Amino acid sequence: MKNDEVMNIAKKRGFLWSSFEIYSGSAGFFDYGPLGAILKNKIMNKWRDYYVVREGFYEIESPTIMPEEALKASGHVDHFTDPMTECKDCLEVFRADHVIKEAAGEEVEGLENEELTDILKDQQICCPRCGGGLSKVWSYNLMFQTVIGAKGKKTGYMRPETAQGIFIPFKRLLRFFRGKLPFGVVQMGKAYRNEISPRQGVIRLREFTQAEAEIFVDPRDKTHPRFAEVADDTLTLYSREKQVEEEGPVKLFAQQAVSEGMISSEILTYQLCLAKRFLDDLGIPDEVIRFRQHLPSEMAHYAIDCWDVEVETDRYGWIEIIGIADRTDFDLKSHSEHSKEDLRVFIEYDEPKTVRKLAVKPDMKKFGPIFKGDSPKIIKALEDVEASHVEKAFADEGSFKIEVEGKDYELSPDLINFEEKEEITRGEKIFPHVIEPSYGIDRIIYSVLLHTYTQEGERTYFKLPADIAPLEVSVFPLVNKESLAKNALHIKDCLRKEGIISEYDSSGTIGRRYARSDEIGVPFAVTVDHDTLNDDTVTIRNRDDSKQVRVPLSDVYSVLGDLVSCKTSFRDVEAEYKKVNS
Amino acid sequence: MKNDEVMNIAKKRGFLWSSFEIYSGSAGFFDYGPLGAILKNKIMNKWRDYYVVREGFYEIESPTIMPEEALKASGHVDHFTDPMTECKDCLEVFRADHVIKEAAGEEVEGLENEELTDILKDQQICCPRCGGGLSKVWSYNLMFQTVIGAKGKKTGYMRPETAQGIFIPFKRLLRFFRGKLPFGVVQMGKAYRNEISPRQGVIRLREFTQAEAEIFVDPRDKTHPRFAEVADDTLTLYSREKQVEEEGPVKLFAQQAVSEGMISSEILTYQLCLAKRFLDDLGIPDEVIRFRQHLPSEMAHYAIDCWDVEVETDRYGWIEIIGIADRTDFDLKSHSEHSKEDLRVFIEYDEPKTVRKLAVKPDMKKFGPIFKGDSPKIIKALEDVEASHVEKAFADEGSFKIEVEGKDYELSPDLINFEEKEEITRGEKIFPHVIEPSYGIDRIIYSVLLHTYTQEGERTYFKLPADIAPLEVSVFPLVNKESLAKNALHIKDCLRKEGIISEYDSSGTIGRRYARSDEIGVPFAVTVDHDTLNDDTVTIRNRDDSKQVRVPLSDVYSVLGDLVSCKTSFRDVEAEYKKVNS
Repeated sequence: MKNDEVMNIAKKRGFLWSSFEIYSGSAGFFDYGPLGAILKNKIMNKWRDYYVVREGFYEIESPTIMPEEALKASGHVDHFTDPMTECKDCLEVFRADHVIKEAAGEEVEGLENEELTDILKDQQICCPRCGGGLSKVWSYNLMFQTVIGAKGKKTGYMRPETAQGIFIPFKRLLRFFRGKLPFGVVQMGKAYRNEISPRQGVIRLREFTQAEAEIFVDPRDKTHPRFAEVADDTLTLYSREKQVEEEGPVKLFAQQAVSEGMISSEILTYQLCLAKRFLDDLGIPDEVIRFRQHLPSEMAHYAIDCWDVEVETDRYGWIEIIGIADRTDFDLKSHSEHSKEDLRVFIEYDEPKTVRKLAVKPDMKKFGPIFKGDSPKIIKALEDVEASHVEKAFADEGSFKIEVEGKDYELSPDLINFEEKEEITRGEKIFPHVIEPSYGIDRIIYSVLLHTYTQEGERTYFKLPADIAPLEVSVFPLVNKESLAKNALHIKDCLRKEGIISEYDSSGTIGRRYARSDEIGVPFAVTVDHDTLNDDTVTIRNRDDSKQVRVPLSDVYSVLGDLVSCKTSFRDVEAEYKKVNS
Repeated sequence: MKNDEVMNIAKKRGFLWSSFEIYSGSAGFFDYGPLGAILKNKIMNKWRDYYVVREGFYEIESPTIMPEEALKASGHVDHFTDPMTECKDCLEVFRADHVIKEAAGEEVEGLENEELTDILKDQQICCPRCGGGLSKVWSYNLMFQTVIGAKGKKTGYMRPETAQGIFIPFKRLLRFFRGKLPFGVVQMGKAYRNEISPRQGVIRLREFTQAEAEIFVDPRDKTHPRFAEVADDTLTLYSREKQVEEEGPVKLFAQQAVSEGMISSEILTYQLCLAKRFLDDLGIPDEVIRFRQHLPSEMAHYAIDCWDVEVETDRYGWIEIIGIADRTDFDLKSHSEHSKEDLRVFIEYDEPKTVRKLAVKPDMKKFGPIFKGDSPKIIKALEDVEASHVEKAFADEGSFKIEVEGKDYELSPDLINFEEKEEITRGEKIFPHVIEPSYGIDRIIYSVLLHTYTQEGERTYFKLPADIAPLEVSVFPLVNKESLAKNALHIKDCLRKEGIISEYDSSGTIGRRYARSDEIGVPFAVTVDHDTLNDDTVTIRNRDDSKQVRVPLSDVYSVLGDLVSCKTSFRDVEAEYKKVNS
């Protein structure tokens, strides 16, 4: 299986391995080794290049530990849970929905604990390990919990997503953007999920890296000013309907997906296209990528539309690597309510508007006899009351109750008249909607390794785009002779000084060294041979086709600089310099 | 106070603010806002440029959550503690050493809990808040604790330092470096410290970012092959002796510091110089930097030598921003013992050595009568026993006890002879020593802001080096007229496409806009004026001296590209283009 070969090389050569191996490991945790960490950094910097430099969004960084109040507001304290059941005999703990799916083949996502308990009971489903009876289903919160401070009073959690760190300081961010929509803020960093028993390698981690963008827009305008730039991009779309009808996905131009209403807005479609371009740039082939729309049952209740970018794998089937959702105003509204801070945005009208508004007009004469000396303060309090509230109370309850200075007063309809007034308003306050592309960086790295892994006879290599390859250039003496070795080492040092990540290797035959260099995806190799000593030229070898050109030393640094930043292709270099017959 | 002015601008303009403000905040947590996050990324990338690209070290990334066993081995479970005392009346909790220092002026770092309790009692020190009596002193562990997995059995902690994540996979790293010393591995990332009551802003965070390098060396060779490159660098050194004698620091060449024995090794000195160069590159002036050697009382018991890089601040005095230590073989040895994995490195001799070695030689004839049928297996077991152990046992206890297949046998000296043997050995296994520069990124960022903050009359600006400034170029129309605005916006977009972080601003007078741009340290401003429409030239203004030059649009992107990457200076640009009289 390709997965196993890739993970084997990844471990052996220093991309990725299970953490804490000398302490018998700890499931759900992985280290990025020397090559993996460079690959990850390069992919994250490319993401930054897309979202920060080119889209013009701004990055922020908020803590990974969050106090309980904030996650109460976001809904994670109550709803970021898995349904669990315990075996009464062996005490092993399982996810109830997984046990049911395995035993009965039923998809039960979204059911309540009581319903799951009933299914376990009715279908007599037993412990998959020992056959014992299973307990009632309970909710297990997936956040890592901790305590902030010395006195043990303040509960904290490791954040379940980076997004919340953007919503919480929304007022400061809005000020940074001078109060104007739309704007985008991104965050890249660790997120945590205390999985019960993660057994899927790097696919299901307890600690993982996200890159999320929260794009705040006026809910009434979900067009995109630069949509034309992506209108002709093609997307493989697996819509809700096609899934329900059990048909395959369709390939559409972005333009079509919007006009046919398959994707809910231009701005969401634009984000899908951006994701696709990003994955193209990482070398993940088109045919293993699809966009799958969430079914109503799996979508968060507040979302309008949500698409997963999925990649096909031989080991795990189609896996989600990016989620792109229209989260509406759920988060900002909820944080507003919990924090009592107004997180709305004032949207100025193009021209001030005159609005006709119903106003409450107390019948002064009738107040005195009933409320005596309290009348003035009741009348004063009524000034701040919305007419619509009073109307509704009259309709629903026959009277309107008002509290003034701790005392309740009941007003009957005959005490109040309504009057239409004209008011000039400069604009209105609204909660922005949020478009969120959320990238799972670890799964993307896994997908890149899996799908760039190439076997040609004995030779294996990662066909990584040059600008994300961890090692950029290998430098070899053709044979291990001092004059050649000295020259090669010098070239390696000069490349480093130019900021090109290069390594020197002189151990074993040149063929063996090419193979080792290919195996980890080094895109180019420079070889110093006997001709180098005479004419100051070296060969540059291209990983993907093993072809070589001979380049003067005076050009080699700039040529390699352009090659490893993808400013030029090897084909162009071949056209300019002399090919070497190998 | 400069601190307050800087933090005020930092908060207002989007560098840094307290996290979770809408939930009344949470002490010890800070957000990096839109400008702060770019600054941080740039500083971390510069660090990478120093340590990864140029030094040739490799970066890895390990989890922030660690299982208890690993931190037991590192000593953090037992020793990463603060001495605490509680007020019996108001129940407030305090650091005992701080309370003593405040009340009695005594420096009591390193004392045991019992000794601190005695001091509290003897000196009748009371609660600094309410005057109540204080409790016995106990150890409070500073790690955030959590539980890994569903069943609550596995204790985990948020890592207290990134270093441990490098020691644990040492075997994999050694293999990556093909078994050869020296090599360096770095990690940048979050570390955590559950401070009791952090009240020093960004100086004492509960969650902070470290950049650490662990350089594994042969303990017998602490020279540095490229020491000559730094030999003439000057360092302000505040040695142990000078501190004890209550004198000031001295300024020495690196070369002198080594030859006079003030710093324990070339390799440690090289690291001090690297740190100094890094801080220079960030714009922190020489006069606020000093290297302070740890006093024996504050140094970890296993360390040979340790220097803090300190920066002077108006609010907090001299603060440590980098620590550079020779950690010896403490960590690898300890992880070896706890994990039962051999973390030693095989060092091959230049030539195989013939070693004379004492070997155990059982007197076969005497074994039979005593141990009967067990004799062969005892004799077999003795083959693996070091002669020195047997000799020592004879000397100390009069006999040597050996366990074979669960049974104990006592051997008296007359049963054993010793024999000298010649053995050929190719090398030996040793624990490498570790040189560790450990950078506190948040404090460095604070120091950069504090010490680049400049006031000139009304004008304030951060004199940030161009290559770490968060916004690189401001683009302005001289006046807010459509023809100029359109032009300026186009230039801003083109700069973005070139990867230059630029912003457009047309609100308020040009003077006001320069001031706003200066305030956040934007190094260059491009202004589109009426001449632009005629001759396709714009002005580039230099933040530091407000000088301007007029540059043709055709050159402006490459000129600004060179300026913001510090490839050229504004002075050079002034020499090439026409100055503008302002």
